[in-house]
Order: sequence, then C-alpha cells, then structure tokens
Amino acid sequence: MIGVFDSGLGGLTVVKELHRQMPGYRIAYFGDTARTPYGGKSKELISQYALEDARFLVSRGAQIIVVACNTASAVAMGTLRAELPVPVWEVISPAVAAAVKVTKGRIGLIGTRATVGSGTYQHHLEIEAPEAEVFAEPCPLFVPFVEEGWHRSKAVREVARTYLNQLKLRRIDTLILGCTHYPFLRPVIAAAVGKGVRLIDPARETVAALKRHLAVNPELAKSLDRVGSDSYTVSDRTDQFARIASDWLGRPVELETVRLG
Amino acid sequence: MIGVFDSGLGGLTVVKELHRQMPGYRIAYFGDTARTPYGGKSKELISQYALEDARFLVSRGAQIIVVACNTASAVAMGTLRAELPVPVWEVISPAVAAAVKVTKGRIGLIGTRATVGSGTYQHHLEIEAPEAEVFAEPCPLFVPFVEEGWHRSKAVREVARTYLNQLKLRRIDTLILGCTHYPFLRPVIAAAVGKGVRLIDPARETVAALKRHLAVNPELAKSLDRVGSDSYTVSDRTDQFARIASDWLGRPVELETVRLG
Repeated sequence: MIGVFDSGLGGLTVVKELHRQMPGYRIAYFGDTARTPYGGKSKELISQYALEDARFLVSRGAQIIVVACNTASAVAMGTLRAELPVPVWEVISPAVAAAVKVTKGRIGLIGTRATVGSGTYQHHLEIEAPEAEVFAEPCPLFVPFVEEGWHRSKAVREVARTYLNQLKLRRIDTLILGCTHYPFLRPVIAAAVGKGVRLIDPARETVAALKRHLAVNPELAKSLDRVGSDSYTVSDRTDQFARIASDWLGRPVELETVRLG
Repeated sequence: MIGVFDSGLGGLTVVKELHRQMPGYRIAYFGDTARTPYGGKSKELISQYALEDARFLVSRGAQIIVVACNTASAVAMGTLRAELPVPVWEVISPAVAAAVKVTKGRIGLIGTRATVGSGTYQHHLEIEAPEAEVFAEPCPLFVPFVEEGWHRSKAVREVARTYLNQLKLRRIDTLILGCTHYPFLRPVIAAAVGKGVRLIDPARETVAALKRHLAVNPELAKSLDRVGSDSYTVSDRTDQFARIASDWLGRPVELETVRLG
C-alpha cells in the first residue's frame, strides 16, 4: 500500500489528491497529532519524528512512502532515504519542476519557518532554474488559521496582506504554496499577491508525478496493494481532529490512535 | 528549588513574576518545546506530557512544582498530585480566587480549547462564586500570534474582536486570561472587551499566593534553595525560542536541551 504521513492532518490534502488522480490504490495515513506542528521545531527533532512516522507506516505494510509534510520533506529526506527499506517520495522536487515549467523568472516561496529556513526549496530552484530569481517568506500563522477553520476571515486576509506584500512588490509570477495547509487559503493568497500569479500546489504535483512514475514502472504499480480499505492513524485523537479529517476528505474517517517514540 | 514547567515558553511569564515578587529563590524551568503546544491535544496526552515534564524537574532537585501551563493545570492536576513526591501548584485556583474577589457577578474566561473544554475553571468558579454567571470562549489563535511577535498587529486586533465580541455583549465585568501567553495581548484584549473590565493574570495571582503560603510556612520557605543560578531547559532548541526567552525575561538565557519520553 501507499504510506502517507504528515505532522498532523494537513497531509490529508495529499490523500485527497491520491483519491482524485489515482483512485483504487490502498492508502495508509499517519498524522503525528501528538507532536504537531513541526514547522517551528529544530531540524534534528523533525528528522527524528519523521523517521518514527515513516517506520510506523512501513511496519503496517507500506511499500512506498509519501512525505506529505513540506517541513519534513525540506529537512529529513537524507535521514529517511538512508534509513528506510522502501522508496520515499517528497513534495519538493515535483513542486519545483512544476514552478520551473511555468515561471517567467520570478518565483515566490511560502512555507513554515523550518521549510523556508532550511533552504531546500531554494537549492532545488537554483539547480533547476539558475536564472530565476527566488523570493521566500515564512508564514507561520497560516497553519493555525486553517486549523481554526478561519479560511475566509477578515483577519486571515489581513495576515496574508502583511506576509505577502513583499512578494507582490517583487512582482513574482509564480508562487509555491510550500505547506500542506496553504491550498485551503488559495483565494486569500491569490488576492494578496495580485493578479496573474500562478499558484503551485505541491500535493497535486507530487501525486501527478507519482502517477507518471507508476505508468512507466508497471512492475511497481502491480505490486502495490489495491484491495482493502484505507487506514487513518494519529498519535493523538481529539474530536476537533476527527471532524476536520472527515470534512477535508468528504467522507467519514475512522481514526485509530497509536503512540510513537 | 522551585520547578516551573510549561508546554513551551509561555510559562516564562510565571518565572518573570517569581523574579519580581519573590527575588532570590532559585528556579528550574522546563519548556516542552519538542511537543508544544498542548492546547489542542487530548486530556490523556496532556496529562502524560505534564507528568514527564514535572518528573524531569523533580529529578533535577525541584522541591515544589509550579504548573505554569493553564492547559496542564486544567486537565492534569489529578495525575500530578497523585504521582509526584513534592507539592504541586497550579494557576487556576489563585486566578479564580482573584476573580471572585473583584467581580460584580459576570465573569469571562478565555483559554485554549483544552482549558475551556475541560470545564475546570468553570467548576472552580461554580464552587467559589455560585451566584456568578460565567461565559467562556476558547481563543486558539492568540498563542501563535504572541509566538510570532505580532502582539500589536491589526490582524490580532481583528481576531480579538471576533473572539471577544460575545463576551462584550454579555457585559462581563471580569475576564480571566486563562493562558500564559495572553497577558502579552493585554491592551488588545482590553480594547476588545470594552472599558471597565478587570483582567485577571493567573501567573501574577499564583506567585502572589505562593508568596503568602511561604510567609505562613517558614519551614518550607527555609528549605527552598536560594543559592546558585536559575536553569532553563527545553526539549527542543531553536534560535527563535532562544530569542523569545531572552526577550521575555529581559536577560540573557542559556537554554539546555533534554529529550523526554
């Protein structure tokens, strides 16, 4: 089966894309809600947590791991690729490839403090599009706004204006939404950065890339489990999480709880 | 020494009050920054984390524990008092006693989702002031705003208006700031709830109560260590945390890192 993990529930956006673009594949999801969020924590700690999350999914039978979390993708890939016995997909390279394809040369990046501070997106962009200019801005308040369900509030529009004004002034033409939660704020972000800016959703691009990969690797595709239902596991369960999970996926979600570490 | 813990750095407001009201006592602080925040997590998990935090401080020689975190005070006191070999102070009873002393009968309470949802403040208020009316409102976005350093932003004023409008309409006369971070938002909160509302800061009231307690318990007071410097330990260290800690305490803070659990 395909294992997907995130620091919390944001990675369900990747699950939603899997359902949409690759229906039929069996998914095991893990959300580390006991230690969420990762975005303001240290590189070493995020790597340790990410490895524990991924190992749990492998122990449940995952044959491929998708790191839905941009923060873990930005800082933990070295650890994950070295330590795990299965292929690991992150969300950064597909998002960068998509941005490079459409940009006219001025690319914006937003994400958590850890994601932006790691320089991983910037490094990939430098390799793929050395002539492009890149402008990055951490936006730590966006995640709590989405989790509070205030996607369309006046306050979040004000926050977006403050965070994104510099990117607007730099006349970016493409913006990478470098955090699983940000696609929920798409209209607010689009309004704040100005007209004509292409918004790149790493969840969508990653699933599209995985789908292409399986199309040219029929052996791997055939080996993936397509029987049985999806499973959703969290390290801490609250009613708030359960409600958000069902809302986001548009179907009832049974959350199992497992403590890690 | 006096052990103080919190889910993160918010509990430094208690340390600041200790420095102000009880200078000279030696303090050991622990902030669980690897698992912060607690406010949206489950009762069981918060109790487990709080016990690990407190046990760490006892292992370092704390002779008394102050639970600076309102969330842990609201849900974990049963566990902490049963399991720890030293006296445990929480921030709720002193805050309630102070509120009851000044109210004319209409008390507001704000805090994290876990604090408000636990009903602990409401239960104490019911016992201490059965005739008072209590109106409670969780305000989950306040903590991220304080941690982002946006205490005085237009956006946080908008958020405060949205959260506190109901309390204003109920004509509360007293408001308990039931989270360690909220005193940083005092001017914003005061403006949003309207004139003449008394704001109660649990950190200040708890330290005042502890000071009175030591005055009438000279044996306990004498047993507390007053030699040596304070220590500050976190379960995850980032530059952001280090900067906030020094800013809040108004002195350079050396953060030691220890992994728990």
